[in-house]
Amino acid sequence: MSSSRQFTGGEPPSPRVGRRPGKPGTREAIVAAARAAFAQEGYERASLRGIARRAHVDPALIHHYFDGKPDLFVEVLHLATDPRVIAARVKASGKGRGTDLVRAFLTMWERSRPDGRSRFVGLVEAVAASQQASDGLREFLNERVWSFVDEGSADTDQPALRHCFVASQLFGLAWTRYILRVEPFASAPVDELAGWVGPFVDRALDGTLPSST
Amino acid sequence: MSSSRQFTGGEPPSPRVGRRPGKPGTREAIVAAARAAFAQEGYERASLRGIARRAHVDPALIHHYFDGKPDLFVEVLHLATDPRVIAARVKASGKGRGTDLVRAFLTMWERSRPDGRSRFVGLVEAVAASQQASDGLREFLNERVWSFVDEGSADTDQPALRHCFVASQLFGLAWTRYILRVEPFASAPVDELAGWVGPFVDRALDGTLPSST
Repeated sequence: MSSSRQFTGGEPPSPRVGRRPGKPGTREAIVAAARAAFAQEGYERASLRGIARRAHVDPALIHHYFDGKPDLFVEVLHLATDPRVIAARVKASGKGRGTDLVRAFLTMWERSRPDGRSRFVGLVEAVAASQQASDGLREFLNERVWSFVDEGSADTDQPALRHCFVASQLFGLAWTRYILRVEPFASAPVDELAGWVGPFVDRALDGTLPSST
Repeated sequence: MSSSRQFTGGEPPSPRVGRRPGKPGTREAIVAAARAAFAQEGYERASLRGIARRAHVDPALIHHYFDGKPDLFVEVLHLATDPRVIAARVKASGKGRGTDLVRAFLTMWERSRPDGRSRFVGLVEAVAASQQASDGLREFLNERVWSFVDEGSADTDQPALRHCFVASQLFGLAWTRYILRVEPFASAPVDELAGWVGPFVDRALDGTLPSST
């Protein structure tokens, strides 16, 4: 593990064979460097070049492991699935897409690790502890997620307000299920939760909005 | 401050004159002891007697400063206003009480300290960091808040599910405003937010629920 710090990136990247090629230590050094960079510089100001410098690797090597800055940020924030996958799902589906969105959002926190809670807790801790991390998450949503939500909407009146409503519904649900663990949200199957919360999200996405002042 | 640790509670409590009588160090020692007790033992198992022992004060002295365990827990969780005040407000109001509830909830985080954000961040950090703290918050809501919500409801079908909906709406709103700081939620006046989010809370409190499986 610690030997990754000595790797200076002189080796040309090997062909991409998924996310975990031969040198896991290098990948971990990049993630650690990205975590430090996002915390200290914020998402927008942090650069792949700076992250590579911190990790003592060639910038090109980052692209061997990650698609780019959003991909790295997702990794740092302990997200298992790229939120863009969810956003694409919203775009794709028509009626009742609130239910689909809730299902996809919950599945993101629960798949591949038995304790979905700890993954969301990781996000909550990172974002609560660092204003830069919360800035980064907001910028990330701005840059990569909301545009998909807007495209999927039949009517894009007051899109910013709808983004707030959607964020509030999803994070409120995750908070109640994973952090506060109030029943029946805490133990209900994902499909049942999707049926309960979906109508609220539909309202957030497509419902009539109060007239703004 | 540190002298409070040497105070052994031999002095009889002076008459209650609000929250900050003569010995602020004693009060702070009690709060620090309560914080440790809730974190290590959880809200239910922590006792006022045990907290007094940790603080090196006579148990009776705790009642000089606090109404009891819920009051202490509220203090520990950085809440400015007792959630019971909010619950009473829900009970009191009839139609459109979702809007009132949102207004009271936001006011709780924003009054008397300019940065409402940091107070909610304190709660988030405590609850994310300690499963006992989140257990305590859930128990506290169970014991002291939900009953008011139920009493205020015209129809108490599936009360537990409504509690989840209400918790999700309010914590989602606070998360989006104070932590994620998405506009327009981040900067909107409380009254405007209440108008936006109130209808969602009304649905949580009194709306038709999907048939449960």
